Amino acid sequence: MARINELGLDVADRLLEFSLQGKMIRGCLVHLGYVLTSASRDLVPIPDSVATAGAAMELFQSGLLVHDDIMDRDLMRRGRPSVFAHYAQKARSEGHPDPDHLGESLGICAGDVAYFLAFELLGGLSSPRETGLSVIGLCARELAAVGVAQMQDVAWGAADTEVSEAQIARMYTYKTGRYSFSLPLMTGALLAGARPERLDRWEELGEHMGLLFQLRDDELGLFGTESETGKPVGTDVREGKKTLYSARIMAAAKGRQRAWLSSIFGNPDATESDLDFVRASATSLGVRDALDLFSREQEARALSLIEAIDTGSPADRAALAALLDFTTKRRQ
Amino acid sequence: MARINELGLDVADRLLEFSLQGKMIRGCLVHLGYVLTSASRDLVPIPDSVATAGAAMELFQSGLLVHDDIMDRDLMRRGRPSVFAHYAQKARSEGHPDPDHLGESLGICAGDVAYFLAFELLGGLSSPRETGLSVIGLCARELAAVGVAQMQDVAWGAADTEVSEAQIARMYTYKTGRYSFSLPLMTGALLAGARPERLDRWEELGEHMGLLFQLRDDELGLFGTESETGKPVGTDVREGKKTLYSARIMAAAKGRQRAWLSSIFGNPDATESDLDFVRASATSLGVRDALDLFSREQEARALSLIEAIDTGSPADRAALAALLDFTTKRRQ
Repeated sequence: MARINELGLDVADRLLEFSLQGKMIRGCLVHLGYVLTSASRDLVPIPDSVATAGAAMELFQSGLLVHDDIMDRDLMRRGRPSVFAHYAQKARSEGHPDPDHLGESLGICAGDVAYFLAFELLGGLSSPRETGLSVIGLCARELAAVGVAQMQDVAWGAADTEVSEAQIARMYTYKTGRYSFSLPLMTGALLAGARPERLDRWEELGEHMGLLFQLRDDELGLFGTESETGKPVGTDVREGKKTLYSARIMAAAKGRQRAWLSSIFGNPDATESDLDFVRASATSLGVRDALDLFSREQEARALSLIEAIDTGSPADRAALAALLDFTTKRRQ
Repeated sequence: MARINELGLDVADRLLEFSLQGKMIRGCLVHLGYVLTSASRDLVPIPDSVATAGAAMELFQSGLLVHDDIMDRDLMRRGRPSVFAHYAQKARSEGHPDPDHLGESLGICAGDVAYFLAFELLGGLSSPRETGLSVIGLCARELAAVGVAQMQDVAWGAADTEVSEAQIARMYTYKTGRYSFSLPLMTGALLAGARPERLDRWEELGEHMGLLFQLRDDELGLFGTESETGKPVGTDVREGKKTLYSARIMAAAKGRQRAWLSSIFGNPDATESDLDFVRASATSLGVRDALDLFSREQEARALSLIEAIDTGSPADRAALAALLDFTTKRRQ
């Protein structure tokens, strides 16, 4: 993209840097979906298409996060300024009249560019062409679902409505679970030759892993530290995000505690001691323990699905189980 | 997408409505690229893939415009509230605490969803699979270029720098010309079986048509009326957009006229009489006539390329020439 203008080179560098800072869970899952579906791993070298599809998944994720940070007004991501914040800072230092809007606009474009580069990668998949189109169709469908679930998330965040646990779990599934876990596992399986109608177990495993990941995300967003996670703690509370934590806390709290909590969720000026009150409530109302238990149940189901895989090597199954463990216990 | 949540249904309806209001030039060009490449039009019915690819082009365009309107702060599009403005209005009427930011966030998501739905359509192209992947690769590459050119456009708009005509023409090519004209023509040709290396004439024709389209766009943005174009007039001037008009006006103006013009371009509060001054300057400095002449040269080159097409029927060539004529003379 350097041929277009100097910003083309800059945004490519920025997206590369941004993508390299992530946990690369999605790229890893494409690989595991592939090797755990191939019957004859030792005979065939892993084709380039697996790495290509993995890179595309990471680029999709970068694009979504770049847009996400604009919506959530997260100035930090992965321990550095988020992309739109970087552009805004640069514009401010150059004396632009409206640096915040320029930063947001450039961030919107940068996210778009990430999606398109990812599809360009997938368009060049050299494995059977039928598989390339299946992978693209699958990615596009799941990403459209992410967009719609994100709209729900954003609209809830700003609204003063109470939302049911079932609605939140559904939002989690489409916004995170299926896209981050089911999709790369299914992609890997497709690249290994699995028929599109034989992807159910990957889909289900991904949904469990996704729920675990999101639960951990919510927990870190409330109980984590900025130095560990690389992003501000308490944003979910201040933005009034509907999470399983907030839904259960509000469902369990009564009287003055409930009134105070209600005034904290969605208050952009909530203080550190307000956040401490939310944390203490999550613990005293038994919400943290209940969600811990819920996580362990999800983990057990995911583990039983991994154990039932009868293709690939024991080492690859162990790698997937290790990734599951990381998903549940990660500190960033 | 209705299965995900009620916003899924809403955004699908909104994108459909939005797409149907456009001029559908891109969808039309896919069709023309197809019929003008097929040797045996009368023998073979036009396959569904042509309409599918055309629909995808229109969805890409809708997604880009939805994001564009956020960046340009255009509250109106096609005579109605733009998508982000609609969401902001709705949020305001529902008493949300931060309706403008919510509108922008939902607009970002809606644009993303449009892109993903378009790629989902392309992933299902039923013509030879090799062609499907070529079309997807082409779309993704050109859209990435649009994103990068748009970044340049946005960054220039906010900056007080003078930009050369050559840089602006380059930005036009990547932001509008290749994507809106070359891409759909090349896509139609690919669907008709053209080899990827035989697409040069479509690419070149599209670049000329795109330049004509953009010149007319700039002209309407300065000399048009809101009732005809369905969007506010003078936005380019107030936002300080770098256009061939602004570049040539500033290059030709001197002394006090130049100083006054310089204070108008990029001034969000420029009045109607300021805009009149810009219009009068464009005429008196000969810029309008010179750009008219430039348009006529581009049109002649495009026409000679159309006349050189030796496939398809005379009626189809005439249809393409009529579209060229519309591009140059349209009032909206």
